[in-house]
Amino acid sequence: MNDRLFYFVGGPGGQWSVRQQSTLSGEAFEPVTHVSVLSAQQAPEDATWVLRGVTSNERYVERSEKEQLAAAQEGLGRPGATFAALIPIRKNAAWWALMQDERRSVFEAQSRHIAIGMKYLPAIARKLHHCRDLPESGPFDFLTWFEYAPEHESHFNAMLAELRVSPEWRYVDREVDIRLQRA
Amino acid sequence: MNDRLFYFVGGPGGQWSVRQQSTLSGEAFEPVTHVSVLSAQQAPEDATWVLRGVTSNERYVERSEKEQLAAAQEGLGRPGATFAALIPIRKNAAWWALMQDERRSVFEAQSRHIAIGMKYLPAIARKLHHCRDLPESGPFDFLTWFEYAPEHESHFNAMLAELRVSPEWRYVDREVDIRLQRA
Repeated sequence: MNDRLFYFVGGPGGQWSVRQQSTLSGEAFEPVTHVSVLSAQQAPEDATWVLRGVTSNERYVERSEKEQLAAAQEGLGRPGATFAALIPIRKNAAWWALMQDERRSVFEAQSRHIAIGMKYLPAIARKLHHCRDLPESGPFDFLTWFEYAPEHESHFNAMLAELRVSPEWRYVDREVDIRLQRA
Repeated sequence: MNDRLFYFVGGPGGQWSVRQQSTLSGEAFEPVTHVSVLSAQQAPEDATWVLRGVTSNERYVERSEKEQLAAAQEGLGRPGATFAALIPIRKNAAWWALMQDERRSVFEAQSRHIAIGMKYLPAIARKLHHCRDLPESGPFDFLTWFEYAPEHESHFNAMLAELRVSPEWRYVDREVDIRLQRA
């Protein structure tokens, strides 16, 4: 099995309890009380839904940006990071038909996606999972996972607000925002 | 199921007969007499091996290049294109650790991958399938499928020779070349 594959399992119990679940665009997603993040070796039990995603190589980040990110970011699993968010996103066909230079332009030159994220480091830890090219097409293209301390939730909201008004978000046609706390 | 997922099935019978199978780098791959290309809905029978890959959005091609490619290329399934090649490739960890700008630089600025391919259009039709991010990691990262008329095999060999001496190929650590004809 691919060790970069993760399952995000929504159900009646699990590692993280849901504080709030909202739909930003597109069809609503079935609400749950708990979410667990499992490796591909662990079988989910009692799942209401299962979203799968795989971490991958960088698609837009350039070397100079990576060095800045690496110097500032912290990893998942910090003891104080008892809040998390799972934000599944789908982008529309127009996005996927763009060439690499066009997507990069929307992503960074127009939307400052990397620069915005950088402002909220190290408070907000982040991990991106890709779904679009999996054999069983799920309802989303990406699953982004964030972890942060409760006192940084306003920072987190400010970051999302900046991203959601950017040109990149014109291509987002489904977005669900699930706020969690360690159970 | 994802309709961009394809199975390349090697076995004792099938759509294409193997004319020659060779290993360019890395471990040898079990030889077969036939290969079939199936959609994800079709169950392979009598398979010696099955390689899976998914077509995806462009990872390196820019808009101006896409326009040149689109103006010159032809599709798969041409009646005269009775020869084909399946070339499975794996790239090493150093490749996947490169950032987007570094991979693009090796791919095109240094290796002229797109420009080389362009020279052999429309004779050589091509389709790329990605494997690295599938849930069951296969032995390759890419499966490239080519179709051409028998009289263009020397063109095809010339194209491969150009690519295989390029800087990009320093990152290729497994490559198998399976030459086929319509059965």
